[in-house]
Amino acid sequence: MTASLTSLVNHQVRLASRPVGRPTAENWQFTTEPVAEPGAGGVLVKTLALSLDPAMRGWMNEGKSYIAPVGIGEVMRAGGVGVVVASHNPAFAVAEHVTGGLGVQEYFSVAGDQLARSGLARIDLRLGTLTQWLNVLGMPGMTAYFGLMDVGQPQPGQTVVVSGAAGAVGQTVGQLARIKGCRVVGIAGGPAKCDWVVRELGFDACIDYKAPPPQGGGSAASPQGSAHWDPVKAGLREHCPHGVDVYFDNVGGDILDAVLARLARGARVVICGAISQYNNTTAVQGPKNYLSLLVNRARMQGIVVFDYAERYPQAIAELAGYVKDGRMKSREDVVRGGVAAFPGALNKLFSGENFGKLVLQVAD
Amino acid sequence: MTASLTSLVNHQVRLASRPVGRPTAENWQFTTEPVAEPGAGGVLVKTLALSLDPAMRGWMNEGKSYIAPVGIGEVMRAGGVGVVVASHNPAFAVAEHVTGGLGVQEYFSVAGDQLARSGLARIDLRLGTLTQWLNVLGMPGMTAYFGLMDVGQPQPGQTVVVSGAAGAVGQTVGQLARIKGCRVVGIAGGPAKCDWVVRELGFDACIDYKAPPPQGGGSAASPQGSAHWDPVKAGLREHCPHGVDVYFDNVGGDILDAVLARLARGARVVICGAISQYNNTTAVQGPKNYLSLLVNRARMQGIVVFDYAERYPQAIAELAGYVKDGRMKSREDVVRGGVAAFPGALNKLFSGENFGKLVLQVAD
Repeated sequence: MTASLTSLVNHQVRLASRPVGRPTAENWQFTTEPVAEPGAGGVLVKTLALSLDPAMRGWMNEGKSYIAPVGIGEVMRAGGVGVVVASHNPAFAVAEHVTGGLGVQEYFSVAGDQLARSGLARIDLRLGTLTQWLNVLGMPGMTAYFGLMDVGQPQPGQTVVVSGAAGAVGQTVGQLARIKGCRVVGIAGGPAKCDWVVRELGFDACIDYKAPPPQGGGSAASPQGSAHWDPVKAGLREHCPHGVDVYFDNVGGDILDAVLARLARGARVVICGAISQYNNTTAVQGPKNYLSLLVNRARMQGIVVFDYAERYPQAIAELAGYVKDGRMKSREDVVRGGVAAFPGALNKLFSGENFGKLVLQVAD
Repeated sequence: MTASLTSLVNHQVRLASRPVGRPTAENWQFTTEPVAEPGAGGVLVKTLALSLDPAMRGWMNEGKSYIAPVGIGEVMRAGGVGVVVASHNPAFAVAEHVTGGLGVQEYFSVAGDQLARSGLARIDLRLGTLTQWLNVLGMPGMTAYFGLMDVGQPQPGQTVVVSGAAGAVGQTVGQLARIKGCRVVGIAGGPAKCDWVVRELGFDACIDYKAPPPQGGGSAASPQGSAHWDPVKAGLREHCPHGVDVYFDNVGGDILDAVLARLARGARVVICGAISQYNNTTAVQGPKNYLSLLVNRARMQGIVVFDYAERYPQAIAELAGYVKDGRMKSREDVVRGGVAAFPGALNKLFSGENFGKLVLQVAD
């Protein structure tokens, strides 16, 4: 370690307490430490950008899940991309770009015996930009790829519906389903996202779940009509006349129920997330239309991306090919301001404010 | 048709109106008709016994399902066994025993061109008794067989849980899973059913969902303890320490949620029915623990037995073999009183009063 590195300061964001509902400032603690010496076989990475994901909300809760919760006082878990600034390991050279579980901090120092657990891996910027490595070539892209292909199993000509269509996972799910020959209907919030999904990404249609009742026509505009207006139900009726063969669910709640009511025979429902439920202070809203699985001989199945780690290289190669030939677009919503901006940026996910994969830029 | 047949009277039960909640006397109409001449190629069957099934409640509702609803004024749909009393069809001889959609009536007369649709088929009483042909060798047995084997896909050594364990489908699911080398835990209501399931059918354990809190131990017996006592949660903790690999659900509601909370990695949840929800006057209770499917990479899938019609003979042969060699027992709860007893008998299913496959005896 050179003398210049030991003078570096590491700003960090730690979990101070477990949130009830949406995270607030009180749940976070800002700390400053000298940069830690990585030690024999270790690596020191300077964080360039962090991935902000709905799953982070789950990691803040106590209790059993697919991954251990972040402990109180620990640096908040986050995937990110960075650059190697010091290395005592032949697998990583200074100035190489890497991705891995860097955490919400400016420097990630990992000991040699912790390298495997950190998932640190070199990335090739010829395949995609830094932020694309947090999006289509990163965890969201992997989640989309294996969730759609392995669990959803779409067949050419089938109808695929994806919620959170303008989000990180949704955008890749929809474009990949189109490439595989499916008819694709997105669900997203607001006309800007819906327009982008259809015009830029080439979805066949997109349902705006926030859409107001149609103008004109006395009954629809009446208070009673408004009370019963459900843009998702109406949109599914219009755009999925033969039912839904694959539903990739990122949101849960009422939207999941609306799609369940329109499943085609033998449909597959991929449970990837339930962002509408993550900040609930009461019980999760169970899908009251789940018996549609019986009527339609359909199945609902969960996916955890880590199970497919051995096949990431194959998926990255395929997706990078689509990015290169222009069939796959990737939109990132980059928030600046460094790690101090993390708490506010995270909440953009839950308000639906982000447009594309949410990324926190930590350094240039 | 002989002169003696034309003098026969056919007592019938028809759907008079659609029930709200549990069916009442007002929903039924009793009619009496002369026995109808089956016509060219047709068959006349005398009903001996009818199958009473939870699914009947669904057939009484309006709206799209896996099968058309029974129309108002129509004879109530029911599967049954009977004996051929007149035949103009070489495939059926007088005095042969048959099974099929006879309806809640004393005589079933079917025209030649309606025979295929009626599903009428000869049964071999050497393979099982008349009531066994409505149970382990009938629709409940077929539902158990294909739901468990095709959807549940149990592996030897895995833990299989089945609700409605003393019911028609549940008893066969559990015994079949035992034969396939699984550890089997039933869920049933009351000590008599649970004892029978364990002692007679050889389940490894049975959870009594009606069990009171354990005696002794101050806190458990306190009002507060009682309020939080959940015999299903406690039973699953005790009997499924490594989680549930296959859950065959006949009941839905809170029991489904309790099992979801204890799924093993990669579990399969077979959605066969939801008897706890069939008489709801409000929305179905959705499984609020459905995100356990994500955490555990599990799947939930519906089954409709009719899809497997081509493979019934194979399943019947296998199950009849187990009946013959004593590994498969079959219990029927036979209600007497003819078709007039149908409305009261049906409600035994929803009160949980029946013990074993519920059968209505119509004639000796």
